[in-house]
Amino acid sequence: MLKINERSLALHKKHQGKIATVPIVPIKTKEDLSLAYTPGVAAASSLIAKNPMLSYDYTWRGRAVAVVSDGSAVLGLGNIGPEAALPVMEGKALLLKEFGGVDGVPLVINTQDASEIVRFVTHIAPSFSGILLEDISAPRCFQIEEELLGIGIPVFHDDQHGSAIAVRAALKNAAKVVGKEYGNLRVVIVGAGAAGLATAKMLLGLTCQSDFCEIIPGGLRVKDAIIVDRAGALFPGRADQNIYKQGLASVSNIDRKSGTLAEVIQGADALIGVSGPNNITPENIRRMAPHPIVFAMANPVPEIMPDEARRAGAAVVATGRSDVPNQINNVLVFPGVFRAVKEGRLKTITPEMKLAASDALAGLVTKPTEDHIIPDPFFPRLAETIAHAMLKKA
Amino acid sequence: MLKINERSLALHKKHQGKIATVPIVPIKTKEDLSLAYTPGVAAASSLIAKNPMLSYDYTWRGRAVAVVSDGSAVLGLGNIGPEAALPVMEGKALLLKEFGGVDGVPLVINTQDASEIVRFVTHIAPSFSGILLEDISAPRCFQIEEELLGIGIPVFHDDQHGSAIAVRAALKNAAKVVGKEYGNLRVVIVGAGAAGLATAKMLLGLTCQSDFCEIIPGGLRVKDAIIVDRAGALFPGRADQNIYKQGLASVSNIDRKSGTLAEVIQGADALIGVSGPNNITPENIRRMAPHPIVFAMANPVPEIMPDEARRAGAAVVATGRSDVPNQINNVLVFPGVFRAVKEGRLKTITPEMKLAASDALAGLVTKPTEDHIIPDPFFPRLAETIAHAMLKKA
Repeated sequence: MLKINERSLALHKKHQGKIATVPIVPIKTKEDLSLAYTPGVAAASSLIAKNPMLSYDYTWRGRAVAVVSDGSAVLGLGNIGPEAALPVMEGKALLLKEFGGVDGVPLVINTQDASEIVRFVTHIAPSFSGILLEDISAPRCFQIEEELLGIGIPVFHDDQHGSAIAVRAALKNAAKVVGKEYGNLRVVIVGAGAAGLATAKMLLGLTCQSDFCEIIPGGLRVKDAIIVDRAGALFPGRADQNIYKQGLASVSNIDRKSGTLAEVIQGADALIGVSGPNNITPENIRRMAPHPIVFAMANPVPEIMPDEARRAGAAVVATGRSDVPNQINNVLVFPGVFRAVKEGRLKTITPEMKLAASDALAGLVTKPTEDHIIPDPFFPRLAETIAHAMLKKA
Repeated sequence: MLKINERSLALHKKHQGKIATVPIVPIKTKEDLSLAYTPGVAAASSLIAKNPMLSYDYTWRGRAVAVVSDGSAVLGLGNIGPEAALPVMEGKALLLKEFGGVDGVPLVINTQDASEIVRFVTHIAPSFSGILLEDISAPRCFQIEEELLGIGIPVFHDDQHGSAIAVRAALKNAAKVVGKEYGNLRVVIVGAGAAGLATAKMLLGLTCQSDFCEIIPGGLRVKDAIIVDRAGALFPGRADQNIYKQGLASVSNIDRKSGTLAEVIQGADALIGVSGPNNITPENIRRMAPHPIVFAMANPVPEIMPDEARRAGAAVVATGRSDVPNQINNVLVFPGVFRAVKEGRLKTITPEMKLAASDALAGLVTKPTEDHIIPDPFFPRLAETIAHAMLKKA
């Protein structure tokens, strides 16, 4: 690990980061200058002034995506601020181009006020065809996303939906490996932040606005999900639940169980950790139904190490790590999502599109095994496949 | 002109704009991914969390510049809004890279409220090493720039300072052509917007905060400047003067002349139009001192056409147009300014640096003639020369 860190630092310093903006038209003569800049550029500006949507055709807007973060919840590092978040956002921008064919621009901002972030994203909307929100902590991320629904371009909070889409795809395939029906799974989710609540919604086939949730027509649903935070299982009327937790509490945990993870895990088919290091014990796994599925997604240190989960009886184990099988990573998802945004000029990303993206991702593994429930990021035509599945729902 | 417009539109549409973001590190293997993205990227983030200034070394920040506009004063087109301003800002980003070696990012924003723009630029400061403000109308541009002085990265309003630096360089060389001392010139400036007031300050060697102006030590100064707006010459106590005009009125127009351009032009050595089409008449020029210098900078239609100015007796004529000699264009200036920002990691651009940039630009024409008072944008090492002159003042 130390070696990777040192080599990564050397890479970042050598190139002074990882991306660049480059001209894609020639600027070698006065003639070139008069076409790309004044006086010729006035023609493009005049045309767009009459119809602002032509900015998608005559500028890079139609393929440009902002990667916006306030640095409040970066990797496993927490609230490290905007400058320290920039290497991660620059990495996301790089991956958007490499895998999704869209031009990412990292924008780290020095406010963590939800209203200010909403205002900021609203202001930059005319510059971009989509916004990838990254590493913004819960529950602000839910409020921010809801307030940005009407700005005319899609806003996708990766920590919520990227994670949820990938986890659902992996869970569909893991169910096949252990010979269970996805629709019969009883799932426990440890963590009620951005990824936890979004994953619960995806697995239950729900879409929510504040505390009101409804079923997405035609979506597959697991049998039940129980969400556990530091205070135990969410259930209706429990203390210390923000409105987003309240909304989900009312449509999950059908038996209204209360208690700690150790108490509610009894008989569950799948245990999904989206919380922090070492939050799952071997004893938790031993209480699950036969052939338990365990996803320990905390990064870089998972809720339980894979070999320990195996020894406790886990039949399928996945993590966010690249050094063990079954890496569930958002990079499998967001490039395809923004490829769809570009190709379809999407104004919004619907819940149906997210389910379709997840189904497409799962479908790329035709014969899942315990060590192969999800493709890797270099799978051929990964982003195209996700994008096309989404666009069928447009 | 029509032909240029059509070809420019075709160019913009063919490439869907003019710039792209590209990866500058390889992403072909899982190993590459682990260095540029997780888990390796956490090392860069952790390092920067301890010292945010390291973001200049380990991310593209050290070479990234935002080109920000609200679309309120675009070319000669006026208040056409953010989307329509985007082709121009994308062009500026292109020129920043091509001539200045820095990575420009166009950000057009859908607010024209000065406080909101200040807030916006403050928020994105951690993402960039500098901000190029473009096409923001006066007098908001003055307020915005003053309020952004303390954000830790330099903010350069091109319509003010780019124009002023280029005009001063051209005027220094034009004075040589007509055998006059720059320090003896009596100048009339038509237009009291962003370019007009900034040019007046540059020519008079002044730096101003709101309505308080002081002399930049060691700077060359013309003998006098009279600024004329729609209501006539600025002078102390005149009605309809915003605070920025009031400040300049108190330190210009030494004889306290009042009246229209036709009245105050009598005996002037140079007439500089930074206003709108057809605001200068042959009769104005005929009233000037012998060997008059006329810069008609309105674009694309100047205050007076060059051949008409010549027939009225102008000894040296310059415009913003590319199809006649002596094109005075901001592209001569802003790439060099941001090259200096990058190389010197400047936190601010001082008045002394702006004078040095102007002197360096003028110095590139060793033997000025009436048709050659300013270099063209392709002059070898133009941006380097300006940058190095500025950095000597750092």
